[in-house]
Amino acid sequence: MTAFAVDCMGGDFAPREIVKGCLLAWEELGIKTILVGQAPKIEEILRQEGFVGRLEVVDAPDSIAMNDPPLSVLRRKESSLFVAASLVKEGKAQGLISAGSTGAVLAVGKFVVGAMEGVERPAIGVVFPNLESRTFLIDVGANIDCKARHLLHFAVIGHTYSKFILGVENPRIGILSIGEEEGKGNELVREAYTLLKNSQLNFKGNAEGRDIFSGGFDVIVCDGFVGNIILKASESLGLAVVEMLKRSVKKNFLSLIGAFLMKPALMELRKKADFTEYGGIPLLGAIRPVIITHGKANAKAIRNSIKVANQFLTLGFNEKLIKSLNEICPQEVRN
Amino acid sequence: MTAFAVDCMGGDFAPREIVKGCLLAWEELGIKTILVGQAPKIEEILRQEGFVGRLEVVDAPDSIAMNDPPLSVLRRKESSLFVAASLVKEGKAQGLISAGSTGAVLAVGKFVVGAMEGVERPAIGVVFPNLESRTFLIDVGANIDCKARHLLHFAVIGHTYSKFILGVENPRIGILSIGEEEGKGNELVREAYTLLKNSQLNFKGNAEGRDIFSGGFDVIVCDGFVGNIILKASESLGLAVVEMLKRSVKKNFLSLIGAFLMKPALMELRKKADFTEYGGIPLLGAIRPVIITHGKANAKAIRNSIKVANQFLTLGFNEKLIKSLNEICPQEVRN
Repeated sequence: MTAFAVDCMGGDFAPREIVKGCLLAWEELGIKTILVGQAPKIEEILRQEGFVGRLEVVDAPDSIAMNDPPLSVLRRKESSLFVAASLVKEGKAQGLISAGSTGAVLAVGKFVVGAMEGVERPAIGVVFPNLESRTFLIDVGANIDCKARHLLHFAVIGHTYSKFILGVENPRIGILSIGEEEGKGNELVREAYTLLKNSQLNFKGNAEGRDIFSGGFDVIVCDGFVGNIILKASESLGLAVVEMLKRSVKKNFLSLIGAFLMKPALMELRKKADFTEYGGIPLLGAIRPVIITHGKANAKAIRNSIKVANQFLTLGFNEKLIKSLNEICPQEVRN
Repeated sequence: MTAFAVDCMGGDFAPREIVKGCLLAWEELGIKTILVGQAPKIEEILRQEGFVGRLEVVDAPDSIAMNDPPLSVLRRKESSLFVAASLVKEGKAQGLISAGSTGAVLAVGKFVVGAMEGVERPAIGVVFPNLESRTFLIDVGANIDCKARHLLHFAVIGHTYSKFILGVENPRIGILSIGEEEGKGNELVREAYTLLKNSQLNFKGNAEGRDIFSGGFDVIVCDGFVGNIILKASESLGLAVVEMLKRSVKKNFLSLIGAFLMKPALMELRKKADFTEYGGIPLLGAIRPVIITHGKANAKAIRNSIKVANQFLTLGFNEKLIKSLNEICPQEVRN
């Protein structure tokens, strides 16, 4: 039976929220997980939740902290993250979920689970809500210094993700730049523009920063340096807006009542902006699903990440990605 | 007497809002401007406002459209933008303000007004509100492909701006990257990190995307490609949040009442996020103040841009910048 290895020691609310997320996935979605981490702690939580013996626990005494150097995980073979990744590599689990240090998850994703054939650089993408529907931005941090052909690969991965995971019929692909016209942007973008234009993708040209949130593109590609900065700036801007609003509201009693009455609208907005709704961030191009969940993940976010991993398998995402690569990328820009 | 040349034909609401902005600057701040553009149109507005003969008008029959190639302004010598820049170059005006095409304003700023001695690449910065106070991000679009020493120059410009325009005693300088630790980031950032560390700046290391809005840095430097994408993404995210909130509110009557009661708080937030409050974006390092105002500028934004240009002069910003460059930049990274 399909089961996913979950790193129960990674994330701000580990192990409790992680374990509870696995239980939610089992109860609500019928998806099985292998709980990897300090067995006594995990079993104690299972006991409290009345779940003993219903999900497998694999002991891993060590765990990677958020501020450990990401690559150190490759040496720490008793860490929950390394053990969980090894279960995937050995075929005992069909995918990996972790809310631990992103860099460390990327490291085991690339070097323990491994890249699928035909993909030079696995990448991570994130789904942003926009005024129309959603924008998939890729890469948001897995690859810092990129070549033009990597951006083409990201576009193919994004196309496949948008089509088969987000259900967009003919995804509109853009490349993140400044100015709409061909020829605008830095050297990397100008070179990648030509590759994208000559591919079989539904390429719509340069996308500007504003297009991420206003719509018009289903997939926007960029290098992981730019993408990561955008991701973090956007999360923080959202939080800052809410915080500034809170502070303003507190100064005025009528505003406080107003905020109360507006609550349903605010909640709906919050839901749109809530990354937990969309599950974790997948490392795309790994040989099996690897889902990087936000460090602040609660049980619901973990449940949704497990759901995403399962979608990948049931949809045969990697097979579809190979097909896309074959159809879209000319041989000379393949690895 | 000091007077600033204002391009009255640039911007979405030109010429009316631009002319009215000049009148506000004169009435409210006592700052004189020279109104450059199609004289009949400008004089008609002055008549309507009861201001005939109180501000000088210089005729320029041509005007640059938003979608004209930016560099074309250098050939179109009868355009309002070129004529206004020439007035500055000839010393008839002490600075330039335009809400026209950013690329075109950058072009006349660099090639007609010209760069000051010691600055290789004039840059544009923008002030973002953050939870503590404000973050000055530089460069946000004037220089696409940069060398490490350019980022050092931007840092010195940002330091000077933060200290003398924003009133920060000892500005905390950061370099935009992914991850806080030294060694994180792309090649450009890693190289610039060393230059910044060895300078006399109050350098606080790498800043992440989130630091723009959460505070902790007074100045954050980046290349103009990354900065421009951040700027546009942030503006658009802010608008998208407000739009999504509006749509949610309309679905529910109590929310509508709530929104009404929250108005003062929302207005305060809006004011914080309102770029018109901060005036335009200065091209820093030009021989005289060049202020690039948002295309959607209304009279108030123009007034504030004129105010900013005037501040530059009265504070002797360029003299202070030369002093900073001499103190902070080792000779080998000067131009």
